[in-house]
Amino acid sequence: MEQQVLFTNAVGQALEQILKQHNGTVFTLTDDNTRREVLPRMACDALQNATHITIPAGEQNKSLGCLASVWESLQQSGANRHSLLINIGGGMITDLGGLAASTFKRGISFVNVPTTLLGAVDAAVGGKTAINFGGLKNDIGLFSEASHVIVSTRFFDTLPQREILSGFAEMMKHALLDSREEFFTLLDTDFSAIHTDTWLPRLERSVQVKQRIVAQDPYDNDMRRWLNAGHTVGHAFESLAWSTERDIAHGYAVAWGLVVETVLARMMLKAFPGDDLQQLATFVRQNYGAFHITCDDYDTLLDFMRHDKKTRRGEINCTLLSDFGHAHADCSVTDEDMCAALDIYRDLMGI
Amino acid sequence: MEQQVLFTNAVGQALEQILKQHNGTVFTLTDDNTRREVLPRMACDALQNATHITIPAGEQNKSLGCLASVWESLQQSGANRHSLLINIGGGMITDLGGLAASTFKRGISFVNVPTTLLGAVDAAVGGKTAINFGGLKNDIGLFSEASHVIVSTRFFDTLPQREILSGFAEMMKHALLDSREEFFTLLDTDFSAIHTDTWLPRLERSVQVKQRIVAQDPYDNDMRRWLNAGHTVGHAFESLAWSTERDIAHGYAVAWGLVVETVLARMMLKAFPGDDLQQLATFVRQNYGAFHITCDDYDTLLDFMRHDKKTRRGEINCTLLSDFGHAHADCSVTDEDMCAALDIYRDLMGI
Repeated sequence: MEQQVLFTNAVGQALEQILKQHNGTVFTLTDDNTRREVLPRMACDALQNATHITIPAGEQNKSLGCLASVWESLQQSGANRHSLLINIGGGMITDLGGLAASTFKRGISFVNVPTTLLGAVDAAVGGKTAINFGGLKNDIGLFSEASHVIVSTRFFDTLPQREILSGFAEMMKHALLDSREEFFTLLDTDFSAIHTDTWLPRLERSVQVKQRIVAQDPYDNDMRRWLNAGHTVGHAFESLAWSTERDIAHGYAVAWGLVVETVLARMMLKAFPGDDLQQLATFVRQNYGAFHITCDDYDTLLDFMRHDKKTRRGEINCTLLSDFGHAHADCSVTDEDMCAALDIYRDLMGI
Repeated sequence: MEQQVLFTNAVGQALEQILKQHNGTVFTLTDDNTRREVLPRMACDALQNATHITIPAGEQNKSLGCLASVWESLQQSGANRHSLLINIGGGMITDLGGLAASTFKRGISFVNVPTTLLGAVDAAVGGKTAINFGGLKNDIGLFSEASHVIVSTRFFDTLPQREILSGFAEMMKHALLDSREEFFTLLDTDFSAIHTDTWLPRLERSVQVKQRIVAQDPYDNDMRRWLNAGHTVGHAFESLAWSTERDIAHGYAVAWGLVVETVLARMMLKAFPGDDLQQLATFVRQNYGAFHITCDDYDTLLDFMRHDKKTRRGEINCTLLSDFGHAHADCSVTDEDMCAALDIYRDLMGI
């Protein structure tokens, strides 16, 4: 069955419709935050008969222990292969819940209701499920699509600004992979209104970029790697931050990574007009600030990039935009080029 | 990629061929028995560079703990998404190893080399992977096919007679689902020669019955339930045996279950000539003995059958043969009919 992605702020009604077509028992999965803040606002009578499973919030709970506790709860509440699991939360909940459902009795159906911007534009759509394992992010999981995803802006009013900006960085990435027009329209919109109905069409446009790409390469062998734009450098920034106990949100790292990798695209592929790059960098600096690095960090950063999980043969690989709406995956980048791009990033960010 | 099932006793050579086409690192998974008894007999030079992962033997180790230990070993030995896992063992190893591979970094390729008759004709082919969880058999898992399965009789010489007979019961089931001719040819063959080359074509014919059925219904919604023939009653016999601390092998329970359910097929569907049923019952009694039950056990057995995991709505469901080569899944059986069939089973078995 093909996945249905619904864009609506009438979340409760959309769920009612889905549950009407479903004969088995119903379960929800939330973390303790979404259980408290979101579940009471669902306005979905059909959920009254559901069994609610809750796990503690936080990336550290995207773990085998919590996955096993979800299986246990399903078992103990008599879930069978005709049951349905509704995952309500951010990427941690939809990733872990998707994996739990896909492996319970060899797979029961699940629905994703992302409640964060990052979850809505990234984690909840595209069929990647996972937990962290052995200190590695998303190392255990599988490809399995939710039967339905309900994308809304309805619960974004509870999100801190940092969460909004984190999700917005993935929207910038999608817009870069869409068109020049879409990119500048996005930068121009009032993103303080992101929790209102007016933002739904923006969200829809963004998610559709991901859907188009994933449809052509669901198992991440080829074109799906376009979605790694900004992420080779972004992940290295995240790793450097963790190793020095600085705390940066994933999307912030992606925003800075997009600046560095767009510089690389200009250097290596002669792509991307200088003015456009300037505007991207200015937007990022004004909204995200800068991730402070010095020349002394370069060796460590290069090392992280060489060990990125998408890398083969220990060389640095980036997905570079050859133009708005088009990327080259698997571009091999020399240490010299990467260092030059990091220099320009520091100039652009005023570091 | 379509699964390749190879029928050959040149197991080492077959593996060499597979590994020649593979670029990534190679891992084997065995239990401590197959590590000691089978791995040294593989005669496959290409395995010399493989990393060997071993878990303790026994159904109680088809557990989340052992699954996690396989993930850990893969991680610590630097497996990446281009690595290959070769599962060498019985159903416990191919079920658990298939699940481990299918969820490591969202899925790496795996090869199954079944070393038991039951594994060869049942577990290793058909894409069901699983571990036991929360006291329930195969409750966590997924559908995922090995890229290759190497079916051989080469390692059957180490199997105790009880193991041979256990696998042979699934071959009887396949033969019943194949044709009358195939069924009586099977009963007539010298199954003391089961570890020789002469038995390979028998094995191939048997596995192909399963392959044909699975190809039409890989996710077990419909025709695949033909393969449950004998299993509703068989599982109930197993559960009764466990609850009274009797130890019976799975295949023995299936053999007795086939007798009871063939009686039911005659009663309910007017299928199956009486002479053929007599021959089946005689063969089972002579080779498997009888599972002893009295009228006092009926209520307990009916209760187990009503809670079989394939059951909906709490009624007893069986897959009944309507003829050689044809079955009806999801036949609803009344308590009265089941008790009558159990009475006849006891007569046929001389209990």
